[in-house]
Amino acid sequence: MPENEWMFGIPYGTRDLLPQEAQEKRRVEAALMELFYCWGYDEVATPAIEYLDTLTIGSGRSLEPQMFKLFDKDNRTLALRHEMTTPIARLVASRMKEEPLPLKLAYISNVFRSEQAQAGRQCEFNQGGVELIGTNDVTADAEVIALAIESIQAAGLQEFQVCLGQVDFISGMMRQLHLTESQQERVTHALERHDLVALAAITEETNLSAAAKESMKKVPTLHGKQDVLQEAYSIALNEQGRRALDNLSEIYRLLQEYGVADVVYFDLGVIRSLNYYTGMVFEAYAPGLGYPICGGGRYDQLLAGFGNACPATGFALGIERLLLAKERQRREKTLPQKDCYIAYAHDQLPKALQEAKRLRAQGKVCEMAFQPQTEQHADAYRKSKGHQELIYLS
Amino acid sequence: MPENEWMFGIPYGTRDLLPQEAQEKRRVEAALMELFYCWGYDEVATPAIEYLDTLTIGSGRSLEPQMFKLFDKDNRTLALRHEMTTPIARLVASRMKEEPLPLKLAYISNVFRSEQAQAGRQCEFNQGGVELIGTNDVTADAEVIALAIESIQAAGLQEFQVCLGQVDFISGMMRQLHLTESQQERVTHALERHDLVALAAITEETNLSAAAKESMKKVPTLHGKQDVLQEAYSIALNEQGRRALDNLSEIYRLLQEYGVADVVYFDLGVIRSLNYYTGMVFEAYAPGLGYPICGGGRYDQLLAGFGNACPATGFALGIERLLLAKERQRREKTLPQKDCYIAYAHDQLPKALQEAKRLRAQGKVCEMAFQPQTEQHADAYRKSKGHQELIYLS
Repeated sequence: MPENEWMFGIPYGTRDLLPQEAQEKRRVEAALMELFYCWGYDEVATPAIEYLDTLTIGSGRSLEPQMFKLFDKDNRTLALRHEMTTPIARLVASRMKEEPLPLKLAYISNVFRSEQAQAGRQCEFNQGGVELIGTNDVTADAEVIALAIESIQAAGLQEFQVCLGQVDFISGMMRQLHLTESQQERVTHALERHDLVALAAITEETNLSAAAKESMKKVPTLHGKQDVLQEAYSIALNEQGRRALDNLSEIYRLLQEYGVADVVYFDLGVIRSLNYYTGMVFEAYAPGLGYPICGGGRYDQLLAGFGNACPATGFALGIERLLLAKERQRREKTLPQKDCYIAYAHDQLPKALQEAKRLRAQGKVCEMAFQPQTEQHADAYRKSKGHQELIYLS
Repeated sequence: MPENEWMFGIPYGTRDLLPQEAQEKRRVEAALMELFYCWGYDEVATPAIEYLDTLTIGSGRSLEPQMFKLFDKDNRTLALRHEMTTPIARLVASRMKEEPLPLKLAYISNVFRSEQAQAGRQCEFNQGGVELIGTNDVTADAEVIALAIESIQAAGLQEFQVCLGQVDFISGMMRQLHLTESQQERVTHALERHDLVALAAITEETNLSAAAKESMKKVPTLHGKQDVLQEAYSIALNEQGRRALDNLSEIYRLLQEYGVADVVYFDLGVIRSLNYYTGMVFEAYAPGLGYPICGGGRYDQLLAGFGNACPATGFALGIERLLLAKERQRREKTLPQKDCYIAYAHDQLPKALQEAKRLRAQGKVCEMAFQPQTEQHADAYRKSKGHQELIYLS
């Protein structure tokens, strides 16, 4: 490592985007926002820095260790936002309080988590998504899932699955079985990590009946199409659990109407790690990536935390994960083409500037030389930069 | 103030963007990046968080008090980026070191300064700009200024002025007059603040000749068209100063060729506060805003700080300032139009979903109802949301 290597370093879990990556990211983000807008969702933006107290209203203190903290001039604790749902709930409860409901909002923003970085898990990453606030209609949940699916398609990803769960199914089950709070937490954590071994171990520690233990252990295996839903009904232990399944069944029927149900699978083990979810939850997975490219669900209590009780549902896409999945699927890979390089002989700069103006007005991508040069020299440069055409003024 | 007001607060100097503001910002940013790309500049992106040591290579420790600092897990000092030129210099000196020169790079990013916020001065704001790296040709400086002018126009701002200065003119003068380092710093600081009184006071403290004192005090008043350049020649004290004026004269001639010289004025008092500038510097002002909407210049030493000695020039636009100036000029103000609201009678949801799909495929902006409703109810909602048309399926 050269002696000055330190000055080129960037913090753990961050990255630079070179031209092709930056351009691809911008293109995907523009396509997403256009789609959100076409569905009636308006963009909003919030600061990257918020008060720590605000950000923890939503997801609680459990995510605090993952937050980058800093201090304002009065020594009050600030943090870099770690997701967008809570800041938007704050905005809706304050400056947008008088707006007619439902409110349909969209965003694309950088967010920060000081977690262990791995492929697709960054300390700084970008999220695009929507929040649909003010209705608990099941049609709203279906719209949000259908829009998530169209978003992934609009971003150019061909192969993916959406896994649909319901937090009320598992919490109904845990309530019926009278699990202690600590047991509930450990079950939740095991489900989050898809850790069947841990789930089995926790289950065995309880003094549940053999049948109840079997039901608990079965939850994360309930992944599939309608037959899985039938199986889930057979192990649902109470009214809360059955209502959760009715809700999923109705959402699925609506997704069939939307024509997107073929990519949707029931997965009763999906519960999401942000603990503000209260109803349906979903995640989208691309083959070969071990973490979701998209996640969302219903959160009917979060806004009450801001004094504005009101049901809501939404999703967030991980832009970098989407780009990574797309890169791996290597479909429709076309390199962007630059149109022309304009060079000139001595004294021909004015003519060259005229020409550049004319071509740029036509929407052509034109790069200008900065010095008179020979046509041969100019053509070599053109090739090195990948421009299609040389325009040489002599 | 209600008791729960604290939870709605956002940190000093930050802001939320409501839908119209967010949409306008996105539109302007897309137009800027398209223009940059049309001129042959490729987008790059860098992390919001960098090592403090990296960020201070460029502008030195003087801006450190303005930086938001935080710490990584090894307790190394990080900071939120306060501008983009230094991170891009780092990127060029590391991962892009082998690219053929000149390199033409563009960016649009959020940056952070914990300074006193005032109108147009935020603790978090957005910058868009370009860096042209690897050439000291005067044509490169002219291209950068011409592109800055076209960028401001592309963003929709009609009235503005570009003020063109040269840091070598004033530093040549200070060197010739043998000012002490502390005097040079105070002169620089007075010029940055356009503080003629302070400049006069510092000048009077020196033991310069009366003629030299007059020349010093004249610098910030040298603002205008070609006649000002002639006046500057008459007070230039050495070869360095005269070469600086020759450089400005040549840049101006090129800007005439570009057809943009009418908005360009010489202003020998412009020196910019980032102390990495080494040649021409410029700022763009809109009437009624007391701070520049755009600034840039030549920085031939910054890359050497990263072990990659190489001349460069560039500019940054302040997106929020541009939007504020535009808002004040209130030209071409058209509210975005939403196309339709789709509502339905009982059992007509499937038909409504079909209709939404068809219209969205045509690029129409369609918002969907979530429940069956009467046509009257639907029309009232449509009006409240500002949709042009109601599509009601019964």
